[in-house]
Amino acid sequence: MSVAIPEGYLMAGVHSRVKRDSRKQDLALVLSETPATAVGVYTQNLVHAAPVALDRQRTPSDRIRVVVMNSGNANACTGEQGMKDALEMTEKAALACGAKPEEALVLSTGVIGAFLPMDKIEQGIMAAAVKLGRNEACLVSTARGMLTTDTVHKIAGRTIQLSRGEVHVLGMAKGAAMIAPNMATMLGLILTDAALDIETAQSMLQAASDDSFNCMTVDGHMSTNDTVLLLANGAAGGEPLAGDDLEQFGRALDEVCIELAKAICADGEGATHLITVEVGGCADREAARRIARTVADSPLVKTAITGADPNWGRIVSAAGYAGVAFDPARLRLTLNGTLLYEGGTPVAFDEKAVSQSIRENRDTLIELSAGDGHGAARFWTTDLTAEYVRLNADYRT
Amino acid sequence: MSVAIPEGYLMAGVHSRVKRDSRKQDLALVLSETPATAVGVYTQNLVHAAPVALDRQRTPSDRIRVVVMNSGNANACTGEQGMKDALEMTEKAALACGAKPEEALVLSTGVIGAFLPMDKIEQGIMAAAVKLGRNEACLVSTARGMLTTDTVHKIAGRTIQLSRGEVHVLGMAKGAAMIAPNMATMLGLILTDAALDIETAQSMLQAASDDSFNCMTVDGHMSTNDTVLLLANGAAGGEPLAGDDLEQFGRALDEVCIELAKAICADGEGATHLITVEVGGCADREAARRIARTVADSPLVKTAITGADPNWGRIVSAAGYAGVAFDPARLRLTLNGTLLYEGGTPVAFDEKAVSQSIRENRDTLIELSAGDGHGAARFWTTDLTAEYVRLNADYRT
Repeated sequence: MSVAIPEGYLMAGVHSRVKRDSRKQDLALVLSETPATAVGVYTQNLVHAAPVALDRQRTPSDRIRVVVMNSGNANACTGEQGMKDALEMTEKAALACGAKPEEALVLSTGVIGAFLPMDKIEQGIMAAAVKLGRNEACLVSTARGMLTTDTVHKIAGRTIQLSRGEVHVLGMAKGAAMIAPNMATMLGLILTDAALDIETAQSMLQAASDDSFNCMTVDGHMSTNDTVLLLANGAAGGEPLAGDDLEQFGRALDEVCIELAKAICADGEGATHLITVEVGGCADREAARRIARTVADSPLVKTAITGADPNWGRIVSAAGYAGVAFDPARLRLTLNGTLLYEGGTPVAFDEKAVSQSIRENRDTLIELSAGDGHGAARFWTTDLTAEYVRLNADYRT
Repeated sequence: MSVAIPEGYLMAGVHSRVKRDSRKQDLALVLSETPATAVGVYTQNLVHAAPVALDRQRTPSDRIRVVVMNSGNANACTGEQGMKDALEMTEKAALACGAKPEEALVLSTGVIGAFLPMDKIEQGIMAAAVKLGRNEACLVSTARGMLTTDTVHKIAGRTIQLSRGEVHVLGMAKGAAMIAPNMATMLGLILTDAALDIETAQSMLQAASDDSFNCMTVDGHMSTNDTVLLLANGAAGGEPLAGDDLEQFGRALDEVCIELAKAICADGEGATHLITVEVGGCADREAARRIARTVADSPLVKTAITGADPNWGRIVSAAGYAGVAFDPARLRLTLNGTLLYEGGTPVAFDEKAVSQSIRENRDTLIELSAGDGHGAARFWTTDLTAEYVRLNADYRT
């Protein structure tokens, strides 16, 4: 394994019996040996889960030590009881780790509208606490403890050399999969032993999320639980990062978030293609982002890729209704590197060759240029398959 | 047939050989014996077809006599040649009908990015011109001449008694079906023998479209050719409608547009359910509209209905990310009349019974209330089936 666990963190994942399959971890603890700077980026959904509400209250902070995570039950749409349960979960986790209740954060994912089985959760917390460690098995069980219907766990890491020595960034995430009824979706946890002040940590996590987790769409459906947390405990030593060191850290954080976001997309339900939509030449980044997202959200674009069809018409017309002003006569489109459309009309191209390149590669690259502006953005999505529909329609039978 | 053809209109549809199947009409002409008030509502897509550009120039007008329609080729993304061809199409149609070139409008639908086969179009126009008539066969062949992959033609009509006598409203439409590569989608043509002044006609068509064609979504993909035209030739006699007569006419126009919109949705590709999303209790109509559309666009809501699952979580969470401020604790949801969610939490309900009601009815009704405001709106959509994906992904094979 090339991913190192940052200094000063212990972790473990266990099976707490919330999930039926006893081989599946469904509860995990992460402990920082010293108080860490902690910041979060949360779902913008008005309907959000109790853990989101609680973590929002507790972050940003410079004294977080514990993150407790569970899967199988999202503690969403559970009213006042949900908030009590989220609070109790952080209390039990803090107690088990020797921390104070208010030093803990909580992430939950799974079915919504059901109360947490607090007896199982509490037993799971106790079981995880005694297994806390720093080896690969601990890391993998933790990353697996946050999964719901993901087919693989998702871990990414970077080790960087700064002027004050080595620093680690470790991220884990669970994906945009909503198979079973009422699943609540994306979670991410990023740990570093770098020292970061609160404001810097918040702005860096926001920026990194905007270019990664906020640039992916599987089905355009924003969940009630989406949360990304960043903990920075400073165990690598030194003052909070600044200058070149901070810049280098920021790039590593961006890379980790992008790697996780792509992994989430690639593991999207029923997906046979990971589609990258790159848009450039716009007046500003927001314009490029809107076009990229509109193309990435179009079921017609997604099904065209499923069918290995270089369907420029669906892509160009999706760009056209993004609500962004541009001159259609300057629109330029390439698919997997082949020019399909330029100057307001399609161009001649080898349709069979492009179709084959879609069929034979899991990655598809759609590049659009809307003029000569400097605004650019990138979005990731998946294709839309009959398997996606089957997973999301027929899960009851 | 209960639908009457308004006074003063002749029409015919023929097979012009643009479509391969000789049993399918693909070109139609509508002639008003006297100059008609004509207004249009057009796609907001920046990338739009030549016929849209031409009709936009020519409407609103008080002297339109001819509408020529073709299917099989949308004359979109065809550059300058496309505009020349659209112009020529109106010239030939006007000539064949004894009208002036600038008195004609044009509607095209079908594949995009290909030039119109003008020889076939011209021959089709000549063939249609000699068949112009006012009987049911003429009406049906005209309505069929605008179809692409629709499985049924769509006609709706109302006859109303006004103070000055009987007036007719007749509408025909083609649907939101985008199977073959690069199809351009929705068209509507509404004819009346009422007299309308231009401003009134424009505002009434806009209002009727906003509550019908602009409240349906099959896949959220806005086409390059979407156009609805209203012709009012005044053949029923009298001055332009006003007062109670105008109100009554407006209701009939609304009904015709809603009937056509629902027919379009119900004929959506692979659809097994027509889903109506009604949202009320919002601060204003726009807020209600955004929530309704967000719910209607969610693939997770659509697949839940496909699977006959009363999945309140997907519906409530979609409402939550619509970008409209409301108090989630006041959200109320019923599905086919059964209360599923109220006061921030799901309520106990007979899941099997609701599932059965979804499975056994083609119509599904989702009702959301977001508070005690007076803003309300309604959206129609279809479920999302594996058949939709098959039609839109595998059409090449």
